[in-house]
Amino acid sequence: MKLIIAVIHDEDSHRLTEGLNKAGFMATKLASTGGFLKTGNTTILIGVPKEKVDEVIEIIKKECKTNKQMSLLNPPVAGMPDGYLPYPIEVTVGGATVFVIDVDQYYKL
Amino acid sequence: MKLIIAVIHDEDSHRLTEGLNKAGFMATKLASTGGFLKTGNTTILIGVPKEKVDEVIEIIKKECKTNKQMSLLNPPVAGMPDGYLPYPIEVTVGGATVFVIDVDQYYKL
Amino acid sequence: MKLIIAVIHDEDSHRLTEGLNKAGFMATKLASTGGFLKTGNTTILIGVPKEKVDEVIEIIKKECKTNKQMSLLNPPVAGMPDGYLPYPIEVTVGGATVFVIDVDQYYKL
Ligand code: NI
Ligand code: NI
Ligand code: NI
Repeated sequence: MKLIIAVIHDEDSHRLTEGLNKAGFMATKLASTGGFLKTGNTTILIGVPKEKVDEVIEIIKKECKTNKQMSLLNPPVAGMPDGYLPYPIEVTVGGATVFVIDVDQYYKL
Repeated sequence: MKLIIAVIHDEDSHRLTEGLNKAGFMATKLASTGGFLKTGNTTILIGVPKEKVDEVIEIIKKECKTNKQMSLLNPPVAGMPDGYLPYPIEVTVGGATVFVIDVDQYYKL
Repeated sequence: MKLIIAVIHDEDSHRLTEGLNKAGFMATKLASTGGFLKTGNTTILIGVPKEKVDEVIEIIKKECKTNKQMSLLNPPVAGMPDGYLPYPIEVTVGGATVFVIDVDQYYKL
């Protein structure tokens, strides 16, 4: 048995959970913040037999794939000088950090 | 040293924490959602010497024991036809998923 | 690769995260409660190469060092008899419980 701990972006959380469930895996979500993922993130726990680890990694890779998109990270705020124009900047969304850990004993009570 | 990670139902969380404290174990609760436990759940971390693992598992088994009870999972909602009657259905409450993990180094700072 | 799981006091959380970031480590914070730390606490996950474990432990030790300070833990509350005087008592603040765990596989997707 292995425990997979994945730190993912909040916005991928629902899609990943659905992808895992569809493939028969159960995930527990922990609310988390900070970390290398600058925006809100979610930490997910998935317990799987070791021969299923690769399949779960593939699902995480598919559902949380890093990609770049343009975003208005600098919208005008109160007190900005007149004539300020927000401009789009490139941000990376998605991505995941995954730890696979050996489970010494596993119980379903 | 072992780290016990237990995913339990919210409603067992207070009782389990008390049971663990009474036996001299300290537990850290993490807010969690989803997972194989359909209702709200809590993830609990307990660090114990390896000869105490069985005792903690017994406490979790006792305080989070799965049992079935009748519940009105289908209460009437707005827009239901007149004459709708909710009926009781059987749901499983309690239960826990437990991972016991080897701790390589342990520090109390 | 090692996964460091540290349970620390809330009030040390910001300082520790900054200390870790300054040294080039990324930390993920999980909201947590209870445990051996009586006040609010935070659980932090840090993934590091094994030769960096000692450096992280030193940072945690520095930023979350247990120390005693005087505190009014018994302020007067509504309904106290007239003439009640709060008195300072010694409380321990800071401190951390740290688990270092072997990581079997590590992915940055
Ligand atoms: Ni990212
Ligand atoms: Ni259940
Ligand atoms: Ni303390």
